[in-house]
Amino acid sequence: MTEEKKANQQWGGRFSEAVDEFVARFTASIDFDKRLYRHDIQGSMAHARMLHKADILTEEELGSILNGLQDIKEEIERGEFEWSVALEDIHMNIEARLTEKIGIAGKKLHTGRSRNDQVATDIRLWLRDEIDHILAELERLQDGLTELSVKENKTIMPGFTHLQVAQPITFGHHLRAWREMLVRDHSRMVDCRKRMNQCPLGAAALAGTTYPIDRNYTAEQLGFDAPTANSLDSVSDRDFAIEFCSASALILTHLSRMSEELVLWTSQQFDFIELPDRFCTGSSIMPQKKNPDVPELVRGKTGRVNGHLIGLLTLMKSQPLAYNKDNQEDKEPLFDTVDTVKDCLRAFADMVPHIKSKSENMRAAAKTGFATATDLADYLVKKGLPFREAHEVVGKAVAYGLDCGKDLSEMTIEELQQFGAVEEDVLEALSLESCVEARNHIGGAGEG
Amino acid sequence: MTEEKKANQQWGGRFSEAVDEFVARFTASIDFDKRLYRHDIQGSMAHARMLHKADILTEEELGSILNGLQDIKEEIERGEFEWSVALEDIHMNIEARLTEKIGIAGKKLHTGRSRNDQVATDIRLWLRDEIDHILAELERLQDGLTELSVKENKTIMPGFTHLQVAQPITFGHHLRAWREMLVRDHSRMVDCRKRMNQCPLGAAALAGTTYPIDRNYTAEQLGFDAPTANSLDSVSDRDFAIEFCSASALILTHLSRMSEELVLWTSQQFDFIELPDRFCTGSSIMPQKKNPDVPELVRGKTGRVNGHLIGLLTLMKSQPLAYNKDNQEDKEPLFDTVDTVKDCLRAFADMVPHIKSKSENMRAAAKTGFATATDLADYLVKKGLPFREAHEVVGKAVAYGLDCGKDLSEMTIEELQQFGAVEEDVLEALSLESCVEARNHIGGAGEG
Amino acid sequence: MTEEKKANQQWGGRFSEAVDEFVARFTASIDFDKRLYRHDIQGSMAHARMLHKADILTEEELGSILNGLQDIKEEIERGEFEWSVALEDIHMNIEARLTEKIGIAGKKLHTGRSRNDQVATDIRLWLRDEIDHILAELERLQDGLTELSVKENKTIMPGFTHLQVAQPITFGHHLRAWREMLVRDHSRMVDCRKRMNQCPLGAAALAGTTYPIDRNYTAEQLGFDAPTANSLDSVSDRDFAIEFCSASALILTHLSRMSEELVLWTSQQFDFIELPDRFCTGSSIMPQKKNPDVPELVRGKTGRVNGHLIGLLTLMKSQPLAYNKDNQEDKEPLFDTVDTVKDCLRAFADMVPHIKSKSENMRAAAKTGFATATDLADYLVKKGLPFREAHEVVGKAVAYGLDCGKDLSEMTIEELQQFGAVEEDVLEALSLESCVEARNHIGGAGEG
Amino acid sequence: MTEEKKANQQWGGRFSEAVDEFVARFTASIDFDKRLYRHDIQGSMAHARMLHKADILTEEELGSILNGLQDIKEEIERGEFEWSVALEDIHMNIEARLTEKIGIAGKKLHTGRSRNDQVATDIRLWLRDEIDHILAELERLQDGLTELSVKENKTIMPGFTHLQVAQPITFGHHLRAWREMLVRDHSRMVDCRKRMNQCPLGAAALAGTTYPIDRNYTAEQLGFDAPTANSLDSVSDRDFAIEFCSASALILTHLSRMSEELVLWTSQQFDFIELPDRFCTGSSIMPQKKNPDVPELVRGKTGRVNGHLIGLLTLMKSQPLAYNKDNQEDKEPLFDTVDTVKDCLRAFADMVPHIKSKSENMRAAAKTGFATATDLADYLVKKGLPFREAHEVVGKAVAYGLDCGKDLSEMTIEELQQFGAVEEDVLEALSLESCVEARNHIGGAGEG
Repeated sequence: MTEEKKANQQWGGRFSEAVDEFVARFTASIDFDKRLYRHDIQGSMAHARMLHKADILTEEELGSILNGLQDIKEEIERGEFEWSVALEDIHMNIEARLTEKIGIAGKKLHTGRSRNDQVATDIRLWLRDEIDHILAELERLQDGLTELSVKENKTIMPGFTHLQVAQPITFGHHLRAWREMLVRDHSRMVDCRKRMNQCPLGAAALAGTTYPIDRNYTAEQLGFDAPTANSLDSVSDRDFAIEFCSASALILTHLSRMSEELVLWTSQQFDFIELPDRFCTGSSIMPQKKNPDVPELVRGKTGRVNGHLIGLLTLMKSQPLAYNKDNQEDKEPLFDTVDTVKDCLRAFADMVPHIKSKSENMRAAAKTGFATATDLADYLVKKGLPFREAHEVVGKAVAYGLDCGKDLSEMTIEELQQFGAVEEDVLEALSLESCVEARNHIGGAGEG
Repeated sequence: MTEEKKANQQWGGRFSEAVDEFVARFTASIDFDKRLYRHDIQGSMAHARMLHKADILTEEELGSILNGLQDIKEEIERGEFEWSVALEDIHMNIEARLTEKIGIAGKKLHTGRSRNDQVATDIRLWLRDEIDHILAELERLQDGLTELSVKENKTIMPGFTHLQVAQPITFGHHLRAWREMLVRDHSRMVDCRKRMNQCPLGAAALAGTTYPIDRNYTAEQLGFDAPTANSLDSVSDRDFAIEFCSASALILTHLSRMSEELVLWTSQQFDFIELPDRFCTGSSIMPQKKNPDVPELVRGKTGRVNGHLIGLLTLMKSQPLAYNKDNQEDKEPLFDTVDTVKDCLRAFADMVPHIKSKSENMRAAAKTGFATATDLADYLVKKGLPFREAHEVVGKAVAYGLDCGKDLSEMTIEELQQFGAVEEDVLEALSLESCVEARNHIGGAGEG
Repeated sequence: MTEEKKANQQWGGRFSEAVDEFVARFTASIDFDKRLYRHDIQGSMAHARMLHKADILTEEELGSILNGLQDIKEEIERGEFEWSVALEDIHMNIEARLTEKIGIAGKKLHTGRSRNDQVATDIRLWLRDEIDHILAELERLQDGLTELSVKENKTIMPGFTHLQVAQPITFGHHLRAWREMLVRDHSRMVDCRKRMNQCPLGAAALAGTTYPIDRNYTAEQLGFDAPTANSLDSVSDRDFAIEFCSASALILTHLSRMSEELVLWTSQQFDFIELPDRFCTGSSIMPQKKNPDVPELVRGKTGRVNGHLIGLLTLMKSQPLAYNKDNQEDKEPLFDTVDTVKDCLRAFADMVPHIKSKSENMRAAAKTGFATATDLADYLVKKGLPFREAHEVVGKAVAYGLDCGKDLSEMTIEELQQFGAVEEDVLEALSLESCVEARNHIGGAGEG
Repeated sequence: MTEEKKANQQWGGRFSEAVDEFVARFTASIDFDKRLYRHDIQGSMAHARMLHKADILTEEELGSILNGLQDIKEEIERGEFEWSVALEDIHMNIEARLTEKIGIAGKKLHTGRSRNDQVATDIRLWLRDEIDHILAELERLQDGLTELSVKENKTIMPGFTHLQVAQPITFGHHLRAWREMLVRDHSRMVDCRKRMNQCPLGAAALAGTTYPIDRNYTAEQLGFDAPTANSLDSVSDRDFAIEFCSASALILTHLSRMSEELVLWTSQQFDFIELPDRFCTGSSIMPQKKNPDVPELVRGKTGRVNGHLIGLLTLMKSQPLAYNKDNQEDKEPLFDTVDTVKDCLRAFADMVPHIKSKSENMRAAAKTGFATATDLADYLVKKGLPFREAHEVVGKAVAYGLDCGKDLSEMTIEELQQFGAVEEDVLEALSLESCVEARNHIGGAGEG
C-alpha cells in the first residue's frame, strides 16, 4: 500500500504498516453501506448546522459544507461518485470527497462526532423511512383484502381445521382472518418505529464529546423525538434492528400461511381460486404447468428473514460494551430484510385484488366432509340433548355416512332419525347458508 | 384400551378403534399444560357466567359449575387431583372431573366453545400474568442499577471500544447504559401485553357458534380490552407467543452482554469488581477457584431463548388456517421462556446491588492504554489545529509512548511538546476527572 | 445454609459464605442431569479400574468402589436414591453417596479427574447409546417404507411439482423418495457417532493431571476409539452435541415433509390415503372430525429441534476456552432433541406400515391436470419435432383443454391433430401405465 | 411485455398473458445464479455427450453444442455476455444464447432433462469445488497453528476456566486445542462432500424421462460416485446445502471462540499477544486505538452463517415433494456461507502465523490467581492426604493469600506449613514448569 493510500486513512498516526489488501477488502463496508448515502448526508447537514449554532463552524464554513454535501449527493445520484474501498465506509468516502471539494472546512465537520454515533444515526434515519414505506404497503394489502372480502362475503367455502373440512364459512370471512394478521403487523411496526426514533448523534465514540454540542437541536432537525439517553448505549445498541427483524419475521410468517393456502387452493385437488397468469410461470419441460410461483417464493423467503433475525441475535450475544467491529455485520441482514419485506408485500398487494374465486367448487367442497355436523349437534342440543351426548349421536351418523358414502346433506329425515329426534326443520338448519348465518356474533363466520 | 377409557374421550362417536397407547402419550399435552389450571378455571367461570346471562345455563347450573370449579382448583392446589393422560389435556381433565362432581351441568359448560378457543384464552390469561411479573422484575433490576449508578457516579473507569481502552468514563455511566437496555425491554413488554389483550373465547372451533353468546361480556369479565375480531384468526394466531419470545430474546441478549462484562471484570486480568461469594461457586479440583457462575449461566441461557423463538417461528411457518395440531407445540417453548426470563431477571436483580467496585483498579486501568488521547487531540483543536491533524499528531505521541513504555499521563510537558504546541494547562486537561467532566452534555459520560 | 450443608460442597475452602438458596437451585443441574446416572457410574467404574492399574487405588479400594457404585445404580433404579440440589449435579450426588457408603475410598475416586472431563465423558457415553437406538428406529422406518413401496409399486398417482399435477408416478416410487432421505439421515448419524467416539476422561479440569493415568486403558474399557488429543479442547468441545442436533434437524425436516404430504393426502380434497383410527383423534365440538394428529404433531416438532440446534450454536458462540458454566446449558436441548427424534421416528415407524392407499382416487387424480402433457411432447419429439416446439404445441393443446374442460386423455385423435402430427399410437403413448413404464432408467418412476 | 419478450420464455404455450414486470424481476434468479455458469456448462457438456452416446444427438450436433458452450463460457469470462432477467435463470440464459449461436441443435440439448435436475446438478458441482477450496484453507490454517504451537511450546501461560486463572499451561498447548476443532471441521466437510457426490441429472422434472438416457455415463463424466437413486428425491433434496451450512456454522463457531480469545489477549488488561498492524485498524476519533478488527469481524460473521443455516431449515420445513419454487431460495444463503467461510479462513490462515506472544506477560499472569493450587493439593495427596481434604486445606491457604495479598508462589514454607505438612520440596513442586511438565500424559498440558 502506497503512502498516498495510507494518507487517506483517518487514523494512521500510530500505525507502522498499512492494512493488508485482503484485510482492507474484508473489513470494508462501503460495498453495502453506500446505500445509506442520503441519510449520511442528511445527518451531516444537521450536525453541521448544530456546530454552527454552537459557534464551532462559521457561517461561511457551514455554507460551504452544506453546498458541498448537496453536490456530493447529486454526484452519487448521477452515478459519478467514485467509491473507494481504501476509504472503508460511506462516512469516510463522503468526508474525503467533501474535503477534496471544499478544503479544511470539510475536516471540521467531524468535530464532536465519531463514526460510531454517525452510523447509528444513519441507520436509524434510513430504517425509519423504510418502515414508513412498509406501513404503506401493509395498508395497501389490507385494503385489497377488505375489498375482496366484501365481494366474497356470501361465497360459501369449507373452513378447515387440521386441513379437514370442519364447518362452512365464507371466503370473505377467511380473507378477514388474513387481514387481522396484518393489523397486528402494522401495529408492531408502528411500535418499533416509535421506540427507535431517538437520536444517537453526540454519543461520539462512546462517551460523548468535549465540544459544546446541542443534542436536542440535532435531534429536532432530524425529526427524532429526543436524543438517546446514554452515550455508551447509543453506539452499542442494535435493538431497533432486531426488533424490526422480529416484526418482519412475523409478517413473512403470515404471508407464508397465506401463500400455503394459495398454493393449496390453486392445486387441481382444491381448485378453489385462479391466479392471473401474470403472477405465475410455467415449466421448461411440462407444457401444461401453471405454477403459483409468487406465493411459493414468498413462502420460501420466510426462511431468509428468520435467518437474518437469528443472525442479528447471534451477533449481539455477549458483546461487551461499547462499539465492536462485529456490529458492522448488522447492515446486510437488515438491508435484505427490508428488501424482502417490501418485495413480498408488494407482490401480495398487487396480486390479491386479482384472485378469482371458483365459488361452485368452494360450495361443493363445503357440502362434503360432513361440514354441518356441528350444526346437527347444536340442533339436537336445542331439542334438549346435552352437548356431549349430541356429539356422540352425530358421530354415529357420520360413521353411518362414511359406510354408505353419504354426506349429512344427502341423508333423508328417516336416515337421520335413526340417530336422534330430528324433525323436518333439520333440513333448513343444515343448509350451508343457515350454518354460516347462525354464527352472527362478533367475529363469527356470519358476522360480515 | 378399555371401553371405559374410550368413554372418557369426548369425540369418540365416529371412531372404530381407540387411540394407540403410545400415540395417546405422544399427542397428550396434560404433562405440561396442567400448569394452566388456574387460568383454565378462570376462563370457564367467565364462560359459565356468560352462558347464564344468555339463558343457556340456569342460576342453579351456574352455581353448581362455579362451586365445582372452585373445588377442583383447591383439589389441584392441595395436590389431590388425579391427572389422566387419556383425557389428553387440561381442559378435558377439568371438565371430566367437573361432570363427575356435579353431573350433567358439567357437560353443558362446553356449550358454545371449543378447546381451540379455550386454550387460546387460557394461554393469553396466563401469559398476561407472567408479563406483569416480568415487568416488576425489570423494574426491580432497573432500580438496583439506578441506586448502584448513583453510588458509583464518581468512580472513574476506562470505557472500551473493541475491548481496547478508549476514553475514561465512570462506572455509574456504564451502569446507566445497562439500564437503558432494560428501559426498552420494559417498553416492548408493555406493547406486547397491550397487543395480546383480546379475548378469543367465542371463536369456538374456528367459525364461532350458533349459540347466542355475548363475547363482550366474557372479554370484560376476564379483563381483556375487547373480543378478537375474527374467529379463524383467533384459533390459529400465535403472534403473542412469538412476540413475547422476541422481546425475551432481547432481554436475554442484554443480560448476556452484562454477563460478559461481569465475567471480564471478575477475571484476574481486569479485577474491576467483586461478586458476593453467594453468587459464585468453586471447583471440585482447583481449590482457589471462585467462578462467576450466575453471569455465565445467564449468558448461556440466551441460547435457549433464541432457540425457542426460532422454534415458534418454524412451527407457524406455512401453516394453513385454522387450528392444526402443530400448535400444541407452542406451549413448552413459551413456558420455558417465561421461566428463564423470570429466573435470570431475579438472579440479576438480587445480585446487582451487591456488586462491589474495586475503584483503585478501575482508575489504574483508565490511566493506561492512552485513554486520554482524544482529549489531547481536542486540546490541540481548541488551540487551533484542525481535528484530523490533531488526530495525526496524537497518533505519533502514542507511537512514541508505546516505544518508550509511557502513557500520555506519564509524559512531561517537554515530551508532549515534541508533537504539538501544548502548554502547562495540558496537564489539567488530561486529568481523568477533567476528561469525564468535560463530556457533560445529555447522555455524556460527565452528565450524571 | 447450615454448616452441614456447606460441608457437602466439594469446593468450599476459600468461601466465606454459602451459596444463596435461589442461586443453588438456579445453578444446579441435578434435576435434568440425573438422567446420566448409568453412564456416570459406567465412567466411574472404568476410571477406578484405571486408578487401580496405575497403583493409585488398592485392590480392596477398587472392589469397594465397584460394589458401592453398583449398589447406588440399583438404588437409583429402585427409586430409592435421595437426590440433593445442594450437591448440584449427578457427579457429586453419586460421589457423596459413595463416600457415605464406603468411606474414605469414595473420596479417592475423584483422583486424577474433574467434573469437567467427567461430564464430557458421561454425555458422550449416553449419546452414543441413544444414537444406536435412533439408528435402529431409522432402519425400522426404512424397512416399513420398503415393504409398503413394494406393495404399492403399481399404484398410479400423480407426481406433483409446485403442488400442481406434473407427471404420473407410482405411490411406490414416491415412498422410495421418502426412504432416500432416511438413508442419508442414517449415514449422517453414523458419521456423527464415529466422530464423537473419543474419550475425554483424563483431561481433568482443563490441563490434564499430575497422576500417572493411563488414558488408553480408560478409553478402551469404555468402548471409545481413542482418548481425545488435547485436554483444553476435551472439556470445552460441544461439537458432538451440535452435530447431533444438526443431523436431527434434518431428520425432523424430512419427517415434516412426509407429514405435510400425509396431511394433504388425508384431506377430503386429495383423499389419497387412510390412516388407521388409532393414529388420529377427533374434535370436542365437531363430531365428524378425524384429524391426522400424529403427522401434524411431528411436523410441529420440527420447530423445537431447529430451536435446540440454534440454542446450542448460540451457546457456544464466542466462548473463550476452556470450560465455562454456560456449557451446562448443553444438556436440556440435547436431551429433548433425543427424545423428540426417538418419539417421532417411533410414531412414523409404527404408522407407516398401516397407511392404506385409495388407489382409485390416486388414479383419478393422475388423469386430471394434464399429467401426460410431457409425454405428448416427447411423443411429438420422437415424431421429429424439436423439444421446445413440441412444448409450445402441447401448451396450446392444454389451453384448448382448459377452455373446453377436457383433459388430454379425454380428447379425440382429431382434436389432438389440431395441434400436431399425432397418429393412433398416441393413445397408447398417453396411457398412465405407459407414461410411468417409459421412465425405466435408474431412479426413474418406472424403475421399480 | 412485448411478444418478443414472451417468445423468450420457454414455457409460454398455455399462458394468455405475459408475466408482470415486477413479478419477472421478483421471481428471476439470474442475478445470483449466474455465478454457476461454469458448472452449468460443465453439466451441459456431459449431458450432451450422453445424448450423443444414446443416439439422440448426432456427432455434428454434439460438436456444435460443445463448441457453442465453450464460446459462451469465454464470452462470460470476458464480461461480454448479456444477461437477461426475462430469461429468468442461468440455464435459460445460456440455452437461449446457444440456440442463437448454433440454431436448432441448441434446443435439442434440453432433451431428457429439466431445469429441476439441471440446477440440482449445477449446485452440487459448484459446491464440491468450493468444499475442496475450503478443505485446503482448513489445512493451511491447521499448518499455521502447528508451526506456531511448536514455537510456543515452552511459553507458559495461565489456562482459564470460567475466565478465572485455573492452572498453568503452555501457549503451544492452547493453540493445539484450536487445531483440534479444525481437525473435526475438516472431517465433517469430507463427510459432507462424500454424501453429496451423487448425480441428480436424469431425474428430469421429477419422474425421470422417456428418453434412453445413461445416467451412469453422465455421473461418471462429472466425477460423481453414482447417479442419485430416486428421481423425486433428486429434485427436491437440499440436504447437501443444509449439511454444508451446519458444518460451516461449526467452523464459524470455532473461529468465533478463537476470535474472542484474540480480542481478550490484545486488550490492555490481558496484553498476552500482539497482532500485526496490517490486520488491525484505528479510530477516526481516538488516536491511540489499534483495534483487532479481523477477529471481531470474524466473530460477528458467526451470526450470518447461523442465520443461513436456520434460513435453509425453515425453507425446507414441510415442503411437499417434489420441486417447489421455494427451493430457489437455497442459493443466496449457500453462496454467502461459502464466501464467508472462505474469507474467514483466509483471514485466519494469513494472520495466525504472525501472532506474537508476549511471553513475559503470559508468565506473570500464570503466577497470579493461585494457578498452582491444584498442584499444591496434589502434593499433599502424594504426602498422604485424601484429595477432598487436601482440596479443603488448599482452599484455606488461598483464603489466607487473598487476605494478605500473596499468591501461593509468594508464601514462605512457614506460611504454607500453617495449612498442611509441606516440606522443602514443595517449592519445586509449585514451579510453573513443574506444574506443566507433570501433566505429560496423552493430551495433557505437558505432552508437547
